[in-house]
Amino acid sequence: MQSCAKSWGIFLAKSVSPSAPCRHLSVKSRVVWKLQCRIRNSGASLTAAARGLRTSAAVSSRQIERILPRHDDFAERHIGPGEREKREMLDALGLESIDQLIENTVPASIRMQWSMKMDDPVCENEILESLQKIASMNKVWRSYIGMGYYNCSVPPPIQRNLLENAGWVTQYTPYQPEVSQGRLESLLNYQTMICDITGMPVANASLLDEGTAAAEAMQLCHRQNKRRTFYIDPRCHPQTIAVVQTRAKYINWKSLFMTKYCGLLHISSPGQALVCCATDLLALCVLRPPGEFGVDVALGSSQRFGVPLCYGGPHAAFFAVKDNLVRMMPGRMVGVTRDAAGKEVYRLALQTREQHIRRDKATSNICTAQALLANMAAMYTLYHGPQGLKHIAERTHNAALILAEGLKRAGHRLHSEMFFDTLKINCSVAAKDILERAMQREINLRVYSEGVVRIIYVIGNLLTDHRRWGGTFFSHNLQGSCTMKLNSSSELMPITWREFANIHPFVPLDQAEGYQKLFRQLEKDLCEVTGYDKISFQPNSGAQGEYAGLAAIKAYLNSKGESSRSVDKHKASLAAMMITYPSTFGVFEEHIRDICDLIHENGGQVYLDGANMNAQVGLCRPGDYGSDVSHLNLHKTFCIPHGGGGPGMGPIGVKAHLAPFLPSHPVVAMQSINASSSLGTISAAPWGSSAILPISWAYIKMMGAKGLLHATEVAILNANYMAKRLEGHYKILFRGRKGFVAHEFILDVRPFKKTANIEAVDVAKRLQDYGFHAPTMSWPVSGTLMIEPTESEDKAEMDRFCDALLGIRQEIADIEEGRMDSRINPLKMAPHSLACISSSNWDRPYSREFAAFPLPFIRPETKFWPSISRIDDIYGDQHLVCTCPPMEVYESPYEEKRASS
Amino acid sequence: MQSCAKSWGIFLAKSVSPSAPCRHLSVKSRVVWKLQCRIRNSGASLTAAARGLRTSAAVSSRQIERILPRHDDFAERHIGPGEREKREMLDALGLESIDQLIENTVPASIRMQWSMKMDDPVCENEILESLQKIASMNKVWRSYIGMGYYNCSVPPPIQRNLLENAGWVTQYTPYQPEVSQGRLESLLNYQTMICDITGMPVANASLLDEGTAAAEAMQLCHRQNKRRTFYIDPRCHPQTIAVVQTRAKYINWKSLFMTKYCGLLHISSPGQALVCCATDLLALCVLRPPGEFGVDVALGSSQRFGVPLCYGGPHAAFFAVKDNLVRMMPGRMVGVTRDAAGKEVYRLALQTREQHIRRDKATSNICTAQALLANMAAMYTLYHGPQGLKHIAERTHNAALILAEGLKRAGHRLHSEMFFDTLKINCSVAAKDILERAMQREINLRVYSEGVVRIIYVIGNLLTDHRRWGGTFFSHNLQGSCTMKLNSSSELMPITWREFANIHPFVPLDQAEGYQKLFRQLEKDLCEVTGYDKISFQPNSGAQGEYAGLAAIKAYLNSKGESSRSVDKHKASLAAMMITYPSTFGVFEEHIRDICDLIHENGGQVYLDGANMNAQVGLCRPGDYGSDVSHLNLHKTFCIPHGGGGPGMGPIGVKAHLAPFLPSHPVVAMQSINASSSLGTISAAPWGSSAILPISWAYIKMMGAKGLLHATEVAILNANYMAKRLEGHYKILFRGRKGFVAHEFILDVRPFKKTANIEAVDVAKRLQDYGFHAPTMSWPVSGTLMIEPTESEDKAEMDRFCDALLGIRQEIADIEEGRMDSRINPLKMAPHSLACISSSNWDRPYSREFAAFPLPFIRPETKFWPSISRIDDIYGDQHLVCTCPPMEVYESPYEEKRASS
Repeated sequence: MQSCAKSWGIFLAKSVSPSAPCRHLSVKSRVVWKLQCRIRNSGASLTAAARGLRTSAAVSSRQIERILPRHDDFAERHIGPGEREKREMLDALGLESIDQLIENTVPASIRMQWSMKMDDPVCENEILESLQKIASMNKVWRSYIGMGYYNCSVPPPIQRNLLENAGWVTQYTPYQPEVSQGRLESLLNYQTMICDITGMPVANASLLDEGTAAAEAMQLCHRQNKRRTFYIDPRCHPQTIAVVQTRAKYINWKSLFMTKYCGLLHISSPGQALVCCATDLLALCVLRPPGEFGVDVALGSSQRFGVPLCYGGPHAAFFAVKDNLVRMMPGRMVGVTRDAAGKEVYRLALQTREQHIRRDKATSNICTAQALLANMAAMYTLYHGPQGLKHIAERTHNAALILAEGLKRAGHRLHSEMFFDTLKINCSVAAKDILERAMQREINLRVYSEGVVRIIYVIGNLLTDHRRWGGTFFSHNLQGSCTMKLNSSSELMPITWREFANIHPFVPLDQAEGYQKLFRQLEKDLCEVTGYDKISFQPNSGAQGEYAGLAAIKAYLNSKGESSRSVDKHKASLAAMMITYPSTFGVFEEHIRDICDLIHENGGQVYLDGANMNAQVGLCRPGDYGSDVSHLNLHKTFCIPHGGGGPGMGPIGVKAHLAPFLPSHPVVAMQSINASSSLGTISAAPWGSSAILPISWAYIKMMGAKGLLHATEVAILNANYMAKRLEGHYKILFRGRKGFVAHEFILDVRPFKKTANIEAVDVAKRLQDYGFHAPTMSWPVSGTLMIEPTESEDKAEMDRFCDALLGIRQEIADIEEGRMDSRINPLKMAPHSLACISSSNWDRPYSREFAAFPLPFIRPETKFWPSISRIDDIYGDQHLVCTCPPMEVYESPYEEKRASS
Repeated sequence: MQSCAKSWGIFLAKSVSPSAPCRHLSVKSRVVWKLQCRIRNSGASLTAAARGLRTSAAVSSRQIERILPRHDDFAERHIGPGEREKREMLDALGLESIDQLIENTVPASIRMQWSMKMDDPVCENEILESLQKIASMNKVWRSYIGMGYYNCSVPPPIQRNLLENAGWVTQYTPYQPEVSQGRLESLLNYQTMICDITGMPVANASLLDEGTAAAEAMQLCHRQNKRRTFYIDPRCHPQTIAVVQTRAKYINWKSLFMTKYCGLLHISSPGQALVCCATDLLALCVLRPPGEFGVDVALGSSQRFGVPLCYGGPHAAFFAVKDNLVRMMPGRMVGVTRDAAGKEVYRLALQTREQHIRRDKATSNICTAQALLANMAAMYTLYHGPQGLKHIAERTHNAALILAEGLKRAGHRLHSEMFFDTLKINCSVAAKDILERAMQREINLRVYSEGVVRIIYVIGNLLTDHRRWGGTFFSHNLQGSCTMKLNSSSELMPITWREFANIHPFVPLDQAEGYQKLFRQLEKDLCEVTGYDKISFQPNSGAQGEYAGLAAIKAYLNSKGESSRSVDKHKASLAAMMITYPSTFGVFEEHIRDICDLIHENGGQVYLDGANMNAQVGLCRPGDYGSDVSHLNLHKTFCIPHGGGGPGMGPIGVKAHLAPFLPSHPVVAMQSINASSSLGTISAAPWGSSAILPISWAYIKMMGAKGLLHATEVAILNANYMAKRLEGHYKILFRGRKGFVAHEFILDVRPFKKTANIEAVDVAKRLQDYGFHAPTMSWPVSGTLMIEPTESEDKAEMDRFCDALLGIRQEIADIEEGRMDSRINPLKMAPHSLACISSSNWDRPYSREFAAFPLPFIRPETKFWPSISRIDDIYGDQHLVCTCPPMEVYESPYEEKRASS
């Protein structure tokens, strides 16, 4: 559940807030301080052990490790409940042991009968040293490669206070705007910045990368005019072209190359063909923006606005459209609306376009945002201001002019006199010699057959084909309920190490040996966890992973001459079954192995959605019980934080027969990937968002096989304990055969609509008053709440959350039984902002205290307040504003008064 | 003033808070986003410039730097007001220019007629690269040196969320407990931890280092029993002995060595001699604590509880005493008291002992706390828990046992079989060979003449002499009003770089070349700023700097055979004058040069308190107009943050004739320091708190001479602007000859005691309701407020602060004129906590809104709330509790209820 996960965020913030009492910590400190300091003769037995050592002064530290094991067990820090709490929860469930719980929950037919083979766990205080050794194998050269990835400076205040700050990094997607105004405002700044620089009227809050943004642009054009041919300029970045081509292939489109695009802009008749333009934000600070010459979609990467190279990602792509396309635009968008008190506020706009609400009618599915990186780019623009950005752009351009002049005088020939910052050169000496000299200086250049590098890049786009498309291929992707675990600082710190941050994704592999080693180790461990034979790290979100997995199946079937099999047909044409396990209903179905067998017997493939892998790690493996491919939401199961809505990572695991079809890359030849059989290219960077993979690596290495297994067990224990505490008061939808749930469960609040006029949204908003972020609403069952505690919540926190839900149930009963008005009550009026509580005017039929501090653990000095009253989504969608309001909104009347006084 | 500085802290917190609207940022963003993106032909003129370059492809980046200057000017980021704001403020003052302001403020007789010679300023995005080059000159070897400095692991969550978090690092000393409960609780945890581990009943919230803690112990013993001989065990750390000896020398004490201390514990008769024990926290986790065998004072360093080596500092010393000594204990102490609502809360206890209140009757003056490091140690104990600490201690001890066994078998001889973690060995082979092999492995050992290293360390202490002492030598130290400037992230980031953090202070100098280079560069720049010839970085606080400076004068006079001169005599015996300039009254006295001349003519020396150096940088230099020595509060003038009450740094600058007398060190031979003439040793580490010096280095390098001068000018402009806005409403005490103040000024609120029953404390507490931390109270004039805005505040922030004071003046007028009760009014009831405002019970003669949101810029969604009501200091001092309350206090009745249900 996000609720408790969110509270981890709050906990972190609290524990480091110097101005608020650290309640959690101090309680702990009391427990902690029962130090009995007495003389100990603890060495005696060890002296005996020492006798077993070689009689040498050089006693190796490895031996000491064995004799004197470190006390520090990261799994104990990661997993919330301690031994006593686990015992109490088992007692509440009437169970003897966790083993008994697992026996009652996970079908015996798929249970692993052995332990995962992994390295011994590493202490938290040693993991970074190990990782530093790997990082040091990366070589940080200067990059002049370009191709959409540019060296830039991360302003230190942004690095320290945003990228390295848990308050930004660990947050969930701002689905609850009442407690997320700051992040929403920053994303609105991002959109405004994109609009201002591109000259387009409306932008979204980021997409995954330039390649996928271009593919999204292609699909948007189709949604608008139903045509199916897409022309693409061959001078676009090769990875952008590859991603578009791959996407086109799997939705049966044409996509044609052409060499001149300028002409096309003129021949296209308005309202028919659409024009998309891939462009560069820095160049646009001094160039005429695409919005002024009529393009319909402008897109590109905002990486060079203060985000490190990151060996390819994560970075935020931008995407801006003309007004008439706004309701078809993919991705998240922040908009302005009003709250219940009439105040102008921010929230995610047009959410009804999103997959979790519209499902197969959704506008787009492969378009997770990169919120954290978009926020960095937004702050970068505030840090430099418009004059600063212009100056940087001019300085960059002028440096290129000087270089061009020097190159010409040295006898080289430029391909073109039109450039912003990139020169393509026919060299007067052998390119080999130039490269050699560059290598000596640790400089990377881009090499063509004849010389070096390229100019400005544009996607031209014209649709002339009227064939209909049956675009159901991507329609069944799921939005997970987004487990949130503890994101430990030790996992998060390496992201800003220069050896990880400052590597261009297209450097020769021998400069990225640290990354490659990390990928290999992580792949090995993920294969052990899943039972698969091979992992691809290219998909840079869960949805991308699903797309990649299905495309791999399609490529495999094609290779067998079974291209007639397709996903949406049955029997003879059965291509694949996609199944979530344990199901989103929170149940381990008993017959999963039989189902997989059935599909295979009929010639199909099994895609097992890895969204709930966190319920299986160490207990059962999809690769063992019949699945052919899964994606792994690393931010769910393997501790990558949400970043307020991105970045995520969605690598896929496959059985050996699918391995030849995994994603390849047009620029980087990836080891053990067969480009000829490959499904194509999924993301712009060869290994997706490489720079966040150390997070999952560190988590696995610190937990070890035993810790990972125990995390799974405690996740299941926690869910069952909460279900037990709530079951007498709410209906729990779906249970396993023996009455237990898996790692999550569904709370049915639909009956209260009739009995008390209360809906799921009222419960969610009221939870804010109790200090909790609402769990996932209306998924997978409309009108319900999905609760998934994860192993990181301790019992006290779960008890508080249950108490909040029980308190709310009592409030509902008060309405049902006529003690409270059915329109004016704490649920309908929730959340209660500080402005509301502290106002002289209070005319509610319940007290301020009942509104704001409904239970004793919600206290004024530690309460996390909603900063606004309940959001009015409908108003905002009807009056769509997705850029910053005009200046006057921010001026207080007081400031005006003073100015005039 | 801390007020605005504090608001920088708040601003930082706000700007990075993802859940609160970033009002400041968004206003800026609106200003920022008037981006006009048009085609620019900006390169043309540059192409011409390029023609002047050599016709070579290798155009050096240095040339580009010159032709294309970076736009980024750190001084613009550091200094609050922009050009338009400065113009507006000058207009308000009726001045043409800043030059005119300076002419009217700083006496012409001392004005510099030239610019400081410094390197060109470095951009914020390049400073860390420059510093990294210096840092890389340090060699990070493994240290087995010990001697009070131990390698240890900083837990990543503590590094990331405390040491690297502006909310902890940039805070002011928690003099206003209503807005500092979190930090106070953490310091109380620290005290409790020290008490539990040492077995002593009461501890303070840290001192500077073990050496100064030992010197303080010596002085405390004298305060208690008036004796003047102090025995010290020669097996104590040499730097501890040196600091004690030096302190004894300058207060004319005896201090004798002796070789056996155990016997003394028995011969000393109770109530007569006192026993102090320097000890080690980790050892005490498994040893019998000193509190159990009757010592009166236990002290030592808490560095090895999770604070890096830092080349000597900053670290927190601990200091714990028997109950009967509590009111004589030096240093700050957190205690429990109650607030106006009767709630149990925390605040600094027994403040009347402190120098700024008791002045010459103060308990101690050279004892600034190391709050940030004490908080780290406290969090370290929470991170590991008592079992974890014990395990670490046992593991450490056992490793030493194994090593000892191995060493013996290899034929070496141990000096003693009694050890915790340190072995002193007579080697069976030449020590030289062992050292050589250690060097090859990059390991540092401590060398005696015959072998390697030492055991456990104790200060024995016995006072048998009854001579009175005239301890006025240190009695005139001042507590500055503690300017707070912007502490930029770029300045703060290097502190955790391993090349700065992981160096033992006693490594050979060739392993610390980076540090030595940084010291030389910083010394050169500080000499240029002050006009002195030599700097000593050893004093690790401003008060230590004052002590060091006066000791240098004394040593100088002694060397001239003028030892009869002393500070507290006149004429013939005149030793020195200590003067603050510009004065703490906020005025540049006209005749400073004449005064200095007069002192010199009479054979005395001038000590110019560097507390207000921030008003002089670039305008005038103490070394030019007659001062012989000053200390520099680096946290005031050169951007070291306050850390919630430490660390600071107080290096001293001296004219050439005093240079031979600067502090030396008993372990490390410091270049260009003459040990024979030196005044002795001031701090435990040779260069004080080395690891925070990169902060000041980076600030100076980024500002450059011009930026530093402009910072001074704007500090003076800001103070005069605020004085102007307030002068019609409050009386401004003291002005310069032409009616202008310097960089600070005093607001007289004493008259309101008679007219409205309102005192300075009421104004200070009411400022909290307006969102501001109170400025310094009752210093230097009792019953007044001292306001010092610094250059980092922008005009809007200063206007808000003035508006708050004007609002408060109006509230006072309401009382004066009978519109408001003189006992129950917003000032007397201030601050108003959230609990108070949100309560159903509201019986005040003013509204909730007037209490909590008295002006439009104080809004519910961004207000920083006092978490408690007004503190009751007297109650706390009468019922002194300085360790954590018992467990039950933290349990809510609700939790009990649940447990029983």
